Amino acid sequence: MKDIKDYIEIYKKGLLENIIPFWIKNCVDGEDGGFTFCLDRDGTVIDTDKGVWQTGRFTWMLGTLYNEVEQNPEWLRLAKHGVDFLDKYCYDTDGEMFFIVNKKGEPVRKRRYVYSESFAAIAYAAYYKATGDEVYADKARKAFDTYFLYNNTPDLIAPKFTEHRQTRGMGTPMIGIVTAQELRKNLKDESYTVYIDNWIAEIKKYFINDEFKAVMETVGLEGEFLDHFDGRMLNPGHAIEGAWFVLQEAKYRDNDPELIKMGTKMLDWMWEIGWDKEYGGILYFRDVKGLPVQEYWQDMKFWWPQNETIIATLMAYELTGDEKYMKMHEQIHDWTFKHFPDEKYGEWYGYLHRDGRISTTLKGNIWKGPFHIPRMYLMAWQSLELIQKNSL
Amino acid sequence: MKDIKDYIEIYKKGLLENIIPFWIKNCVDGEDGGFTFCLDRDGTVIDTDKGVWQTGRFTWMLGTLYNEVEQNPEWLRLAKHGVDFLDKYCYDTDGEMFFIVNKKGEPVRKRRYVYSESFAAIAYAAYYKATGDEVYADKARKAFDTYFLYNNTPDLIAPKFTEHRQTRGMGTPMIGIVTAQELRKNLKDESYTVYIDNWIAEIKKYFINDEFKAVMETVGLEGEFLDHFDGRMLNPGHAIEGAWFVLQEAKYRDNDPELIKMGTKMLDWMWEIGWDKEYGGILYFRDVKGLPVQEYWQDMKFWWPQNETIIATLMAYELTGDEKYMKMHEQIHDWTFKHFPDEKYGEWYGYLHRDGRISTTLKGNIWKGPFHIPRMYLMAWQSLELIQKNSL
Repeated sequence: MKDIKDYIEIYKKGLLENIIPFWIKNCVDGEDGGFTFCLDRDGTVIDTDKGVWQTGRFTWMLGTLYNEVEQNPEWLRLAKHGVDFLDKYCYDTDGEMFFIVNKKGEPVRKRRYVYSESFAAIAYAAYYKATGDEVYADKARKAFDTYFLYNNTPDLIAPKFTEHRQTRGMGTPMIGIVTAQELRKNLKDESYTVYIDNWIAEIKKYFINDEFKAVMETVGLEGEFLDHFDGRMLNPGHAIEGAWFVLQEAKYRDNDPELIKMGTKMLDWMWEIGWDKEYGGILYFRDVKGLPVQEYWQDMKFWWPQNETIIATLMAYELTGDEKYMKMHEQIHDWTFKHFPDEKYGEWYGYLHRDGRISTTLKGNIWKGPFHIPRMYLMAWQSLELIQKNSL
Repeated sequence: MKDIKDYIEIYKKGLLENIIPFWIKNCVDGEDGGFTFCLDRDGTVIDTDKGVWQTGRFTWMLGTLYNEVEQNPEWLRLAKHGVDFLDKYCYDTDGEMFFIVNKKGEPVRKRRYVYSESFAAIAYAAYYKATGDEVYADKARKAFDTYFLYNNTPDLIAPKFTEHRQTRGMGTPMIGIVTAQELRKNLKDESYTVYIDNWIAEIKKYFINDEFKAVMETVGLEGEFLDHFDGRMLNPGHAIEGAWFVLQEAKYRDNDPELIKMGTKMLDWMWEIGWDKEYGGILYFRDVKGLPVQEYWQDMKFWWPQNETIIATLMAYELTGDEKYMKMHEQIHDWTFKHFPDEKYGEWYGYLHRDGRISTTLKGNIWKGPFHIPRMYLMAWQSLELIQKNSL
């Protein structure tokens, strides 16, 4: 087993010398603004379209690095480059945001839901914290309000299914929690706590399923189990990400024992379901009854479920001191670092087969950008520093 | 190499003793009507939702077996079971059809596009041919008209992208051709030929790309190459299916040499791009420039691209007598029959990894039902009988 110091070194160095430089070198569009995240293995841009999710997320990451690591002016300049692009090109006339814009910033695609807004909200909030410019605090609040409004007004987001299959998804409360946490932290505004309370209560009431010992991904409006492909399908990486959002709240509330219990239960259950006992790593989808899953990539290993599990296991250890979480961290760390990093060109592959073989060499696209990976490096580094401090 | 007789035996026996009995035994809902296609490996229903595509397709298959193989009353009774369900539950009040209904026939999901209508059209046409009941000829025409109207009226199908990325997809002309061919045949109505002419001209003008030697899947409105993930992505199985629709038209037109040339060119190009030289079988997606593909299942082997390639290679041999197509048939036949059939429970697996390992044991779902597989068995059997006859 590695020493805590070794882990800190891996995460810190990886973040500052590999991941962040890879993206800064390859994705900044100095010509038309914003970022081009669709990159081949060596960083070559292979699609000039600009994903709005990733634009908000990278801008958040840059602002957060500036706020929490070091006041590096390049990071602040690039965060400005990001918020400017969001402001100028990513809003539709109805106040909703787009999903994809082209190189020049013209809208290419809009989707029914409002996750672009949640990622813009955290980008603005981090940029406000970095600059103190109130304009960005307002923009952050406004984007958050849109996220809340659309998710809490029936039919404002056109439902995917008819009235005969009304569903409730884990995504809304989960992303809601972390968005509100970011705004509370960077805007120093306690009024976001009530949203967090409500979303945590929603997860507890509807998604935590004691019978199956699972965090459900999609349920009926009243939390009913839907015995169909969609209702049975679990997303372990997603639920484990939700687990650390809850643990992060426990930490904020002076290690609230109820929230620690809830977060570790979510992690324990979904590790049991998602950890691949044959090949290692966290699988993409599982069926709650062990039946076949309809989605084609169900047994692949994507980068982000591994990232979220690394964060969650460390946070669980930090909060409980239970050695099993340190062992789980070691297990997921070792599998992940053995298979994902690209030793030749830097950064990580995103899409592996179940056994760890590379499925595609893509470094970035509409879904994979500088978010889950650098957030993991930063949070694991921060978590381990705290663990080290507490153990002295 | 197998003798033609052996191949005929495999396809005929497989169709009548394995594939069709598997579905008739497991998917007929005697309680609420229609069919439940979501089956586990052993035929157990694991989701009671009813896909409208598959309902139309299986109904077409049953009617076609009755019309072209044998006047088996069970097939006719089940075709009636299918058209009745389509009539009773699968139409929205605006005349469009749903995508999924639940066990009782209540609508669960509707989608933007109108492929349900194309599959209903061929189902009604085959049932009309089997019964002579004019009501079904009318229903077939009406469903075809809806397909045509929605695909030829700007914005009647809500576009996926904005005005800054207007696209044209291969799916519309391709499915249009085979739908019109079925109606022409079963309704004995030559007026469908003009639609076929136009759709073939559309494929020739916009999708056949001589520079890349590829059949494009998505192009700009004027056929422009879109140098983005979507625009570069090729779907070899889909294009090869399109190739045999064109060859089928050549056959109908007394072996029209221009159409034979077009269809074999499409097949040749897309075999070259889609055949996996390392593991065998037809890959799901390829990038026209050899760049990474964004879709996660790009290197998997699905059942239907293999089915369509088996049909296309035989039809190309039938029309040209070129031995290379018989060799290609043998190659795809051997790989497919080695990996897909389930020797224990019958029928085929649908989803294999690139190297032929099984990804999931699912026999049916919203996408996989009794269509590509039995159509292949039937058409390969028919094609080989003709080849045998011609060689005597």
